[in-house]
Amino acid sequence: MRTSFACLMKPVLHGYFRSSCSWRVRIAFALKGIEYDQVPVNLVKDGGQQLTDQYKTVNPMQQVPAVTIDGITLSQSLAIIQYIDETRPRPPLIPADLQQRAQVRMISDLIASGIQPLQNLYVLQKVGEEKLQWAQHFINKGFKALESILKQTSGTYCVGNEISMADICLVPQVYNAERYKVDLDQYPTIKQINQTLMELEAFKVSHPSCQPDTPDDLRS
Amino acid sequence: MRTSFACLMKPVLHGYFRSSCSWRVRIAFALKGIEYDQVPVNLVKDGGQQLTDQYKTVNPMQQVPAVTIDGITLSQSLAIIQYIDETRPRPPLIPADLQQRAQVRMISDLIASGIQPLQNLYVLQKVGEEKLQWAQHFINKGFKALESILKQTSGTYCVGNEISMADICLVPQVYNAERYKVDLDQYPTIKQINQTLMELEAFKVSHPSCQPDTPDDLRS
Repeated sequence: MRTSFACLMKPVLHGYFRSSCSWRVRIAFALKGIEYDQVPVNLVKDGGQQLTDQYKTVNPMQQVPAVTIDGITLSQSLAIIQYIDETRPRPPLIPADLQQRAQVRMISDLIASGIQPLQNLYVLQKVGEEKLQWAQHFINKGFKALESILKQTSGTYCVGNEISMADICLVPQVYNAERYKVDLDQYPTIKQINQTLMELEAFKVSHPSCQPDTPDDLRS
Repeated sequence: MRTSFACLMKPVLHGYFRSSCSWRVRIAFALKGIEYDQVPVNLVKDGGQQLTDQYKTVNPMQQVPAVTIDGITLSQSLAIIQYIDETRPRPPLIPADLQQRAQVRMISDLIASGIQPLQNLYVLQKVGEEKLQWAQHFINKGFKALESILKQTSGTYCVGNEISMADICLVPQVYNAERYKVDLDQYPTIKQINQTLMELEAFKVSHPSCQPDTPDDLRS
């Protein structure tokens, strides 16, 4: 039977080492202890491998990540992560408490809709020369709000004391903020939670500096 | 008891008649048959009422919508809609089937992260003179992908034959596309589903043309 056979196959992540949305999915797989294969899609080489007709059949939006899993192909990192969480529930990435679930999604969406899309590669290419200021502006705007929200919701992690999808979104966004030279000392709560998370194995093994497609000069 | 008392109070939507993300939440309330109060936040008057210190305590991101419900205040429309769906389950806005759930979230996020943030008021103000072309570019890019995905997932509605959160995202985005003069004839599946949805009462009563804060000259 097709479905059973598909379930026995390892998931395949189409991603890019430096893409923050790809990193989100890598963290989710690592936290769940799920083995997966990676198919690198180089967003800059050859004008962008995500723009090929072949990749368009994987993700019509021509972005990474996309994941082939259980016989279907999904795009949009938060949809992928929630699918992984609903089909492989341990450990949970969305808490059981209904109000905490909403807070996890609110923080995840603040990053995934309110910050990341405005500083991704494709948008910055369109912005042109002022791209550093543009990226800093939107990251700072989002981080000011996020810092204020986290003061209400956080414990050890973004929402209480359990790791969730919100933490999976936070760490790659902080990595982007550092790339764009945002001063993180303005955001002590974000900085503290990020440091705590970066001590964990799942966040380390999924880091952009150690993926199959990481160039040698960026490895650590 | 505070929680029980809060549950007896009507939810309050802080929104703006023309905001597509506010409209999403209005559709969800209408589909569920939930009565709510509206507090208008005029995004253009007085330089933008969302920028006041008072509103910042409601939503630190200084955007609409925000909803006060069951004693908490939430922002980010998809987090709000999923909270409403999980606390008031009938009729469901996310299907029971795990793969369809993922497809609903994928389509919702394609719109909510991949299109809307790049053509919202605040970003277009920063883009300046070329804002019409900028908005058209990102809406067309997203709609091309969406049209291709919907050909796989849709029945009467975006995913199969039941209304879902994906439909709640689709209709306000089509409204924005029309505002920015995008040629919808390029997207027959999007156009057809939108027409079908716009026949339904929940989408009509929540339309920007008939809200408490709709200016008289835009009423219909």
